[in-house]
Amino acid sequence: MDNHRIVLANRPTGLVDETTTRIDIVDRPTCGDGEALIKVGIVSVDPTIRGWMNDAPGYLPPIGIGDVIRAGGTGLVVESCSPRYSVGDIVYGTTGWQEWAVASDASPYAVLPKGMGVDLPTVMNALGMTALTAYFGVTDVGAIKEGDVVVVSGAAGATGSVAGQIARVKGARKVVGIAGGPDKCVEVVEEYGFDACLDYKEPGLRRRLHEACPAGIDMYFDNVGGEILDDVLANIAMRGRIVVCGAISQYNATPEETYGLKNTTMLIIRRARMEGFLILDYVHQFPEAQMELAGMVLSGQLRHKEHLVEGLEHAPEALNLLFSGGNHGKVLVVVDPSVTLE
Amino acid sequence: MDNHRIVLANRPTGLVDETTTRIDIVDRPTCGDGEALIKVGIVSVDPTIRGWMNDAPGYLPPIGIGDVIRAGGTGLVVESCSPRYSVGDIVYGTTGWQEWAVASDASPYAVLPKGMGVDLPTVMNALGMTALTAYFGVTDVGAIKEGDVVVVSGAAGATGSVAGQIARVKGARKVVGIAGGPDKCVEVVEEYGFDACLDYKEPGLRRRLHEACPAGIDMYFDNVGGEILDDVLANIAMRGRIVVCGAISQYNATPEETYGLKNTTMLIIRRARMEGFLILDYVHQFPEAQMELAGMVLSGQLRHKEHLVEGLEHAPEALNLLFSGGNHGKVLVVVDPSVTLE
Repeated sequence: MDNHRIVLANRPTGLVDETTTRIDIVDRPTCGDGEALIKVGIVSVDPTIRGWMNDAPGYLPPIGIGDVIRAGGTGLVVESCSPRYSVGDIVYGTTGWQEWAVASDASPYAVLPKGMGVDLPTVMNALGMTALTAYFGVTDVGAIKEGDVVVVSGAAGATGSVAGQIARVKGARKVVGIAGGPDKCVEVVEEYGFDACLDYKEPGLRRRLHEACPAGIDMYFDNVGGEILDDVLANIAMRGRIVVCGAISQYNATPEETYGLKNTTMLIIRRARMEGFLILDYVHQFPEAQMELAGMVLSGQLRHKEHLVEGLEHAPEALNLLFSGGNHGKVLVVVDPSVTLE
Repeated sequence: MDNHRIVLANRPTGLVDETTTRIDIVDRPTCGDGEALIKVGIVSVDPTIRGWMNDAPGYLPPIGIGDVIRAGGTGLVVESCSPRYSVGDIVYGTTGWQEWAVASDASPYAVLPKGMGVDLPTVMNALGMTALTAYFGVTDVGAIKEGDVVVVSGAAGATGSVAGQIARVKGARKVVGIAGGPDKCVEVVEEYGFDACLDYKEPGLRRRLHEACPAGIDMYFDNVGGEILDDVLANIAMRGRIVVCGAISQYNATPEETYGLKNTTMLIIRRARMEGFLILDYVHQFPEAQMELAGMVLSGQLRHKEHLVEGLEHAPEALNLLFSGGNHGKVLVVVDPSVTLE
């Protein structure tokens, strides 16, 4: 039986195009001792995947040429040679963009509880890696506190929409989003309950941030980097915290195109902090955070939206949606619709 | 009796020149209730003064046109109308660049203990604001720990030379300075005991930092900002800390000339932190820190060097020394050599 996989053919210089990846057909893997064979249901499409395609240092090694594209995913255990997994389990792990995956000691999977009342796309969005990134970014790195004025960029995206809502639950006085275009801004306010949303495609973002947050920005959850980060730095409050989660505006940039940040001296003037983090450092705290996130979903405090793309072969185009801003919500690719959590 | 004062005449755009300040002669102030009249002995010359000359937001308001240049200084109490000060006390406070100053509730002074075995220039350098800035930057913001690899820019300067030595006392495994020119680099290694010093005027600083710190930089004490900060970001270690103390390379820059920082995404990759601070926030911890610094001076663990300039009228030129790199050690202007601590 075949395993269709999407592998890296050439390293892209800007956006991913038809030469970047190719479909590779190999034999379905077998289940070795201590392993489990997984039929992949849904795979995730995240900006960080674009970073792994570069031959550059990162928090994980680059994806090798000819290797399957690294990605989180969920699937069904169809064969188990390990006491950790049972046939019929729905599991979450680093499946990659392929039809069949193998759980092993080197690539462990979490078994998802059934009967939670949430479906698989919801788990991958509101309880998945992007939501966990939002959770630990806001609570731990950003040290959110009662009364904070919070700004979130990429506010219509999978991480940003959750970050703003968690900030609200944790006591933020005002939550302002930044997103691209009027449709997304409406979505951020109406669907995700932000107090306001600024369209960065309109001029004068720095001034509009000042108008929205006249006493300054206490916490900024940054998904985009570049000029927007500079505009926020100009408006940072005394002892403000900038959670450096991502820099999607810069991932496709060549060294010459990379934006040069001019306002970091505001860190001195406002005694502020800019800090990066990696969600993998929090892995032991995931179960507890996911319980809390599930509670927020079920109580309606955490609204979420999935942008489903059908068919593994469309995953590369789906990745570009994130950079063109063409997505609404968490982008997921349905590899096999028969795999469900119910 | 006259009080010669140096006041701000025009806001500079780059370096200070002869049109920036003028000498203003007013009557000697009198001692009101709760005040003390101070004959100024030595005033300090620090990069931050240049920042206060701009009409821009800062941690303190800009110096007004016609106002005396704000600066720390030491002096002798010649008349006291306050129980806090006695005639003959040597005091430390914000004297400004002038011959006579007034201690008041709004501008309090610290009375210096006599018989410490250190002279007045040493107090203003190794126990003064720049040394305190180094102390709290390294210990609190930088959270120095045993075994750290530390890099300090402006390493021959008043703050940097002290920062590196404190890092050493607190257990740093390696202390590397960055300074301008071979003479300063020799001074940093031979006088201040750094393990190495890199001349930023030579090409390839990024590569040389990598060679000096192959496992990455755990803590960077930044006095200069700009391109050197970018080179350090490229070499930051996992969980590295960047103490943003100053940005002397940028203080004279117009908005167009301001350097754009390109490597802040390394904060994500290395889960690193960049944090600004203000020494005034630590004012209640000053006495304890000064005791510790005095101990380091007396035991020979903290080497220091003062660059004395004679005559109040030379203070503006002395300020430019800091930006041309023409100074060796802490720049102090001797206003009245008869004021001493012995």
